[in-house]
Amino acid sequence: MPTPWELRFAHRTEGMKSSFIRELLKVTNQPDVISFGGGFPAAELFPIEQMRAACDKVLTENGRKALQYSTTEGYNPLRQWIVDDAKDRGINITLDNILITNGSQQALDFVGRIFINRGDRVLTESPTYLGALQAWNAYGPQYVTVNTDADGMITDELENLIKQNVKFMYVLPNFQNPLGVTLNLERRKHLIELANRYNVPMIEDDPYGRLIFEGEMLPPIAALDAQYHECSNCFDGNVIHTSTFSKILAPGLRIGWVIAPAVVIKKMVQAKQGADLQCSTFDQYVAYELASGDWLQDHIATIRRVYKERRDAMIQAFEDFMPEGTSWTTPRGGLFLWLRLPEGCDSLELFPKAVEEKVAYVPGVPFYPNDGPRNTMRLNFSATNPEKIREGVRRLSVMIKKSIA
Amino acid sequence: MPTPWELRFAHRTEGMKSSFIRELLKVTNQPDVISFGGGFPAAELFPIEQMRAACDKVLTENGRKALQYSTTEGYNPLRQWIVDDAKDRGINITLDNILITNGSQQALDFVGRIFINRGDRVLTESPTYLGALQAWNAYGPQYVTVNTDADGMITDELENLIKQNVKFMYVLPNFQNPLGVTLNLERRKHLIELANRYNVPMIEDDPYGRLIFEGEMLPPIAALDAQYHECSNCFDGNVIHTSTFSKILAPGLRIGWVIAPAVVIKKMVQAKQGADLQCSTFDQYVAYELASGDWLQDHIATIRRVYKERRDAMIQAFEDFMPEGTSWTTPRGGLFLWLRLPEGCDSLELFPKAVEEKVAYVPGVPFYPNDGPRNTMRLNFSATNPEKIREGVRRLSVMIKKSIA
Repeated sequence: MPTPWELRFAHRTEGMKSSFIRELLKVTNQPDVISFGGGFPAAELFPIEQMRAACDKVLTENGRKALQYSTTEGYNPLRQWIVDDAKDRGINITLDNILITNGSQQALDFVGRIFINRGDRVLTESPTYLGALQAWNAYGPQYVTVNTDADGMITDELENLIKQNVKFMYVLPNFQNPLGVTLNLERRKHLIELANRYNVPMIEDDPYGRLIFEGEMLPPIAALDAQYHECSNCFDGNVIHTSTFSKILAPGLRIGWVIAPAVVIKKMVQAKQGADLQCSTFDQYVAYELASGDWLQDHIATIRRVYKERRDAMIQAFEDFMPEGTSWTTPRGGLFLWLRLPEGCDSLELFPKAVEEKVAYVPGVPFYPNDGPRNTMRLNFSATNPEKIREGVRRLSVMIKKSIA
Repeated sequence: MPTPWELRFAHRTEGMKSSFIRELLKVTNQPDVISFGGGFPAAELFPIEQMRAACDKVLTENGRKALQYSTTEGYNPLRQWIVDDAKDRGINITLDNILITNGSQQALDFVGRIFINRGDRVLTESPTYLGALQAWNAYGPQYVTVNTDADGMITDELENLIKQNVKFMYVLPNFQNPLGVTLNLERRKHLIELANRYNVPMIEDDPYGRLIFEGEMLPPIAALDAQYHECSNCFDGNVIHTSTFSKILAPGLRIGWVIAPAVVIKKMVQAKQGADLQCSTFDQYVAYELASGDWLQDHIATIRRVYKERRDAMIQAFEDFMPEGTSWTTPRGGLFLWLRLPEGCDSLELFPKAVEEKVAYVPGVPFYPNDGPRNTMRLNFSATNPEKIREGVRRLSVMIKKSIA
């Protein structure tokens, strides 16, 4: 029987569910479980000494300001760093195009808050980032989904869908979560051409783009969009772009950002005033000190090297241990890859058996906004060392072989 | 003409407006303006050296954990600190009754998110905290308001209103924002008696309670509620209680909390997963180190002493400078007081004239959920030293005298 409190819950809470991933983390926190489940960066690479120096500098030079309330938009030197960084990647913006958010998750929530009416059609890749679905479900959208392959969203399938009154499209072009695949250049161009032909806004979510292991870094869709719009030095096209410091500095700081036309930022600032006033002033000051340090490029190079080794270890282990009928993506960057089990396997049903074997993953089903195959799973390779990765994959293969025996 | 982006905004954005206060802060940031406008704690009292030591300790002992993702509910030692602290004030709870939020503002947003359907009736004091209105307006409530006097909400007026299908009541019992008044004990008892008789939940917002200058600290309404419920050691009554470290440590950390029945916390955790996953792990570790230090009680005593001096300076200046027909509240704690100008003055219209005289305040009108007198204003006394307070009040009195001349 519902409690009196539950009887008072708003209708929108029906769309709110616990994150499967975050609930799972609780189960798999035992130290003898090898978990490929979370989306954790490698903690052993966190820049602890640089962090200590940054905290010290901020408190010495700006202690009172860094502990006080500050503007909702964010700390200006940090916003300027983002302006400069965006320019390096072909996105021409000013301070008015930036809001600092609690990780890019909050940017996704604000996208939902300011755009989605109940019943609105939102177009996503299938599968797509679970956290986006979780942010938006409370606002009651319907999802229209586009299939994906090794080169990301299959844009040839897009045109028919995009005509059907879509509020916005959502795409993760680089090392997509959960697939690990990258949208190739041809498709990026096709996508932004369609977005402009049909005037459908696009949310480009790029938390992992800097963690590229090999090949060329492709231009952000927000940069490709510029040619469709007259004003060469203002950002007023069809794209909202989000990113974060979580994967290059530390996720515990919860500092991300959103780049959008000024009219959208203005509305998001109002949303943020109601939601939590502002991000941690202190964390913003510290993130600025860290981001503007000379050491950052070397640090990112180290992350790339270590994660590449881990990806390689995982794929080698697949080749050595996995049974016939198993396949996987080979990400050129990021934190995740996608494993497809032999037909008939159900990764959700198998999950308790995996935990028995002391290995954990995220079943693929929650990543499909509508429906999808049940024999898929997302595996994280960034948070586990190569030796443990090999052992974890071996355990996983044991579980899979048992299940198909 | 609306831009294509604006045409796509969701209906709920019509309820979202810029915070008058936060917009005003931009105008009054000139150093020669004496501003009583913000809600800033005194930055010169921030515990910068303790903060440095806390950052250092956290990074030395728990660097990797403090920079990593962590649970949505919050850092357990910090939650345990809140459990113990609540117990000291007569509120018996466990960890399951606590969620750490980005300041108590985020707790208010989550209250709106999980309870308010469009058109729901929400009962507040009149005037009330502007930030609560801003958090809730996007969810489309109607406000039912209760008048206030020097002892807070006039509970004798409550019974007729509470019968009319109210979703929840919202009350700031201690040193209310914006009035500075305190709900007396008799009214607290009356309020919780009515809440239980009519089974209407209450949101008790207490960001300032620790900053008491004189008189007795009154029990939280959440503590008074216990007698109406059977289970003596579980928290499942009619009250949700929020508070924050913003006013005793530093607002720049954005660490607040909400105490609620476990079923409500569970739903709020889902809301937070969608909203931003979690609060800054680092800031939570640091806040715990600070809050559990021996120095904290002395620190709070210092804040009380300094703010009391400032309140006294402001009231002395009123007595010395203000024209006939001006009246004010005399807060026994907190950061704000409420000034009423002679009849016929309009504090919103007069605002540009005040800025000409190099003094700023917040006009009273935005604090009234529905409507209220236009001759009122909120003044902050915590962020300005006594000498400047005297000069600022003098300038204000000049402006007022000119306007009634």
